[in-house]
Amino acid sequence: MASLLEPGSHRAAGVVDDDALVEALVRVEAAWLRVLGLPDELKAVEPPAAEVEAAGNPVLPLVKSLQAEGVHRGLTSQDVLDTALMLLAREAVTRVVGDLDRVADSLAGLASEHRASVMAGRTLTQYAVPVTFGLKAAQWLTGVLDARDALQAVTLPVQCGGAAGTLALVGELLPDPIAAVRALAAELDLVAPELSWHTRRTPVTRLGDALVETCDALGHLAGDVLLLGRPEVGEVRDTSAGGSSTMPHKENPVLSVLVRSAALQAPQLGAQLHLCAADSQDERSPGAWHAEWPALRRLLELTITASSQAADLVGGLEVNAEVMRRRVESVAADLVSERGTSSDPASYLGATDALIDLALARWRKS
Amino acid sequence: MASLLEPGSHRAAGVVDDDALVEALVRVEAAWLRVLGLPDELKAVEPPAAEVEAAGNPVLPLVKSLQAEGVHRGLTSQDVLDTALMLLAREAVTRVVGDLDRVADSLAGLASEHRASVMAGRTLTQYAVPVTFGLKAAQWLTGVLDARDALQAVTLPVQCGGAAGTLALVGELLPDPIAAVRALAAELDLVAPELSWHTRRTPVTRLGDALVETCDALGHLAGDVLLLGRPEVGEVRDTSAGGSSTMPHKENPVLSVLVRSAALQAPQLGAQLHLCAADSQDERSPGAWHAEWPALRRLLELTITASSQAADLVGGLEVNAEVMRRRVESVAADLVSERGTSSDPASYLGATDALIDLALARWRKS
Amino acid sequence: MASLLEPGSHRAAGVVDDDALVEALVRVEAAWLRVLGLPDELKAVEPPAAEVEAAGNPVLPLVKSLQAEGVHRGLTSQDVLDTALMLLAREAVTRVVGDLDRVADSLAGLASEHRASVMAGRTLTQYAVPVTFGLKAAQWLTGVLDARDALQAVTLPVQCGGAAGTLALVGELLPDPIAAVRALAAELDLVAPELSWHTRRTPVTRLGDALVETCDALGHLAGDVLLLGRPEVGEVRDTSAGGSSTMPHKENPVLSVLVRSAALQAPQLGAQLHLCAADSQDERSPGAWHAEWPALRRLLELTITASSQAADLVGGLEVNAEVMRRRVESVAADLVSERGTSSDPASYLGATDALIDLALARWRKS
Amino acid sequence: MASLLEPGSHRAAGVVDDDALVEALVRVEAAWLRVLGLPDELKAVEPPAAEVEAAGNPVLPLVKSLQAEGVHRGLTSQDVLDTALMLLAREAVTRVVGDLDRVADSLAGLASEHRASVMAGRTLTQYAVPVTFGLKAAQWLTGVLDARDALQAVTLPVQCGGAAGTLALVGELLPDPIAAVRALAAELDLVAPELSWHTRRTPVTRLGDALVETCDALGHLAGDVLLLGRPEVGEVRDTSAGGSSTMPHKENPVLSVLVRSAALQAPQLGAQLHLCAADSQDERSPGAWHAEWPALRRLLELTITASSQAADLVGGLEVNAEVMRRRVESVAADLVSERGTSSDPASYLGATDALIDLALARWRKS
Repeated sequence: MASLLEPGSHRAAGVVDDDALVEALVRVEAAWLRVLGLPDELKAVEPPAAEVEAAGNPVLPLVKSLQAEGVHRGLTSQDVLDTALMLLAREAVTRVVGDLDRVADSLAGLASEHRASVMAGRTLTQYAVPVTFGLKAAQWLTGVLDARDALQAVTLPVQCGGAAGTLALVGELLPDPIAAVRALAAELDLVAPELSWHTRRTPVTRLGDALVETCDALGHLAGDVLLLGRPEVGEVRDTSAGGSSTMPHKENPVLSVLVRSAALQAPQLGAQLHLCAADSQDERSPGAWHAEWPALRRLLELTITASSQAADLVGGLEVNAEVMRRRVESVAADLVSERGTSSDPASYLGATDALIDLALARWRKS
Repeated sequence: MASLLEPGSHRAAGVVDDDALVEALVRVEAAWLRVLGLPDELKAVEPPAAEVEAAGNPVLPLVKSLQAEGVHRGLTSQDVLDTALMLLAREAVTRVVGDLDRVADSLAGLASEHRASVMAGRTLTQYAVPVTFGLKAAQWLTGVLDARDALQAVTLPVQCGGAAGTLALVGELLPDPIAAVRALAAELDLVAPELSWHTRRTPVTRLGDALVETCDALGHLAGDVLLLGRPEVGEVRDTSAGGSSTMPHKENPVLSVLVRSAALQAPQLGAQLHLCAADSQDERSPGAWHAEWPALRRLLELTITASSQAADLVGGLEVNAEVMRRRVESVAADLVSERGTSSDPASYLGATDALIDLALARWRKS
Repeated sequence: MASLLEPGSHRAAGVVDDDALVEALVRVEAAWLRVLGLPDELKAVEPPAAEVEAAGNPVLPLVKSLQAEGVHRGLTSQDVLDTALMLLAREAVTRVVGDLDRVADSLAGLASEHRASVMAGRTLTQYAVPVTFGLKAAQWLTGVLDARDALQAVTLPVQCGGAAGTLALVGELLPDPIAAVRALAAELDLVAPELSWHTRRTPVTRLGDALVETCDALGHLAGDVLLLGRPEVGEVRDTSAGGSSTMPHKENPVLSVLVRSAALQAPQLGAQLHLCAADSQDERSPGAWHAEWPALRRLLELTITASSQAADLVGGLEVNAEVMRRRVESVAADLVSERGTSSDPASYLGATDALIDLALARWRKS
Repeated sequence: MASLLEPGSHRAAGVVDDDALVEALVRVEAAWLRVLGLPDELKAVEPPAAEVEAAGNPVLPLVKSLQAEGVHRGLTSQDVLDTALMLLAREAVTRVVGDLDRVADSLAGLASEHRASVMAGRTLTQYAVPVTFGLKAAQWLTGVLDARDALQAVTLPVQCGGAAGTLALVGELLPDPIAAVRALAAELDLVAPELSWHTRRTPVTRLGDALVETCDALGHLAGDVLLLGRPEVGEVRDTSAGGSSTMPHKENPVLSVLVRSAALQAPQLGAQLHLCAADSQDERSPGAWHAEWPALRRLLELTITASSQAADLVGGLEVNAEVMRRRVESVAADLVSERGTSSDPASYLGATDALIDLALARWRKS
């Protein structure tokens, strides 16, 4: 789904696009054939758009094109589509966690290296007390580790309930339908839920919440880089440096801009998933399920892209400790005003060192 | 951007996808060459994804590939991209208005035909006083006409300000830079704004609001069709009738489901546009502008799709006045309970007829 | 509804709180009594919370406490509540427009005064070409005038349809029920709609869109003030100057912070209104109507507060043209780099003057 | 904050309103005095609205009114306000969990009692295969247990970092500032975070996500009750039965309507919290922090109200198994059509019994 209006989305190529979806749908149908004890030879065929619309989803036309005996027997469209989306989500989460690891490693390095690089703390845009750049990096790191924990705690279940969640037709085909759900989960290395979740969308909303949390953490970081990289501040530099279409001197902090852009988009996508969960109806929803798909896909793609961009951004971040130091000197009186005595800002850092140690210790254990 | 997870999006094919965008970008650059008095022979080339990301947007790499003398001179990337998006928006709005006309015509027909088809009014899910299906159609019609008015009132301006909105470089090239803006607008048949709107996004948010209003009106209609088409009610039938992957008897109201799905998505997309407007910064925004693009494109595509689907839905809607009548008979006492005297519900319709006439008169004038 | 967690909300005291609502509800009932030709002596009584919940809305318990003959006869709860909310909205819009006038007047003054105060243009956070502070003020002004136009274009109708929008009971009481709607509108100086809008919520969403547009414009302005007022930039100063709880030197730009905070909240509230419109059902909605109330009230209160704060903010804004000038000198080469020749930034302002004139001319006419 | 436009909000009275906030703020300051080894006699005083606005938050004016020696020393406003909000959140979560227990107990009872009450399964609004009402209750129960788990997993930390998160002034007052944070947490029975979270808002967004998940689960339940309670369906009845202002016969399903209304509101409130997290800046945010407060308070209040209403709703729910049975008989052929042989729907329930057992087993263990 790489698109000209989503710069960097080629980083997510092949993970959540239509090709990946068709492959995942076929993989689910093949796994189910194995559960049924049938041959699982299937060939992926992308269903035509008009048939997808006529069916309301891509599963029915896809199944029609798969000629194998017994294919899809006992399942409903939603079983296959929800499970396929969980397969895509797993690959996406793996990618994101890998990139968050890169971000965390870089931030841990910055936290160590700049443990004592004193800079002005700023609150409500104005100078407050001194901090160090190492502490700032340790704060960003903590946010990234929080997000990684959240992603790793996400449970991705198969969906398998049949037309209305009772496994009625499965019960005609196999002696123990609940064992069949577990077998499908084992085939696909997903979790077996106790009950189907056709209209109980916690697996989707919790996944969404963890993805939004990831974008929050990265957006906070990118936003700070943009502020500290303003030419009047000049304390860090995003070296991704996109050129301007007109101004030769200009270096745009492209990756920071794009990561911040992602963070501005994620909350509405997460809200969309919750709204769909809240509007669930009957045994399967007329519209709320369908409205979930584009938001989930976009949120996965956006988070893959943003975390990959953030890894490059942080990996290439230039920190100018000398500029920080000079600024601290020039506004030293303000920075220590709450102390009541004039003194060197570097001597007024409280527990900064110990706080950095706490963040680094968590990172080392993770 | 037709996608398996957006059933029906092939209805919007070619209007807002990357090909259409590249063509529109080139069209803007060519129009600007004419304003500059230069030859406007340009050939569209889709820029590579990596270059798009490196530049932060597709304009710079596209411009690099266009070999013409003077191309892009005086403009900034945002001038070209914003203007190109307005061109796409114009085509999209034209399509949507055309489909709303089809919806309105069908609804006007239903309002006339079923002017006297008495049915139960329902409030907070319970029986209230009687209405007629004609009045319901007249209400839907009024919502659709409101949306069409809103879309037709939208102003789509060119963007032309140069690097920071001052037209400085244009002023080096042409004697009257403000006349140049007007000339560009004339070339593209868009409106000439007084000032550039790089960080004043009213043109985008007003467009977005009108699109969301359209989806609201269609979603209301589709939601009512879903309720009235439930098998226990059976008063209307969405004949789009998608089959089930497992149940031979089943007819899913596919178009109603998809239109309602669109209406559940549009508000979040509109909010995204407003958030980007609110977060505008400096002369051009670091992230808020970028976060606008996917939301605007998706909202345009969604509204094109939903209005086209709604036209088919309403055009094929089956109304079962006999079922309505029988229900009214069976609960007649409830329907007239507020009147205080037992009577025929058909005699307790108040101004229904006159209200239908008002809606039809507005439709005829429109 | 002034609250400790909504600093400044006392500025909206009495406009949209429960007392104002009760008064408006009673005013609607009294106006209706006059339409019915009955005595309109009514005394406002705030209904108990438990009865409000039992009824699902405040109208029924309020009506029970009003002893007048014929009170509420022919109306439904939604008629009275929707109309009362439009009365509150009218007062709110009047207040907001008044404050936007104050903002606009101050901005017009700044645009004139600083027409030639050259400053660095900034795009994607980095220096671009020169602008003047007068142009920046003219851009903010244009946004504020756009918002004022939008608010003044909002139509606030009475709601009057009876139980299901047919005016059935009204037709038993009066010879011409549609004339009665017009009479009610005339009594309250609101607009008479052609059809009731119980489940066609354009009046609410359009009002909401205009309020969000207002917050967008003010948030853009406040965000720019925060950036330009950072101590490293120092080009403007928000003199509202809240103190810090710990740091004696510190001056927090409180009004800018609060106005920006409002702008970050408004888009979600507007989306809530659209979602409720999209989820409208039957003749009156089971939940979508109710979910609209707190969002509408909060959006009205927030916009009243933010526009009043913005008027104070802009009125007290200190502009430091000397700091701007010195910065322009120090980065002059960058600011004119696109020109290709070294020159004075003050000579590279393109149409700046003419653009300021256009904005001021619009302001004068408004 | 009980309000006429938020029916039922009196159920949350005293938990998150201004009085509760002032008390919590004072409680935090008193606990901190004990950490400092000072007398903790403090008297709550609500700060005047104008002073709250001037300071940008209620803490500074409150502190000024507290005369005790050393009060607030070492803390920043955000330390006190964030911690006080966590105290309110804890009380709110305790209330919600208590009400979810009531909901769960009632649902477990319904799942057992109606284990074999066969009813039509419905998907995309149309009849699918048979289910039992017990299974539906078991599904709702699972959603409620998920939400309770999520709420109980929420971590509520104290905030304690001083002006910029370094504990600098605390380090002047006490030998071990990190131990002081732990002591404050112990005093208030909250969790001690490793680092301050002034601009890393995971504690707030995770709390928000769990609250939204709760509203999702309750909204799904209430939405289903509304559908099954439509007069044409009549399979359940919400006995909360609000009257109509005009129609004597009418029983409005008030609690279902209000719970569904809450569920339509929660997603935007959760998105607001995430947006504020994503827009965090520097050591403390200019606006993003402030925009969080009303959304968090409203989300807490809404969830307290909705869970309490849901407990009453489910506790009073009437289930009409006889109506379900008759409907199943009348459409039996459709319900078993996927089976391929004509048969009794009651014999086509698949694993329904075992699935109900799984849900009940989880409930018993919880």
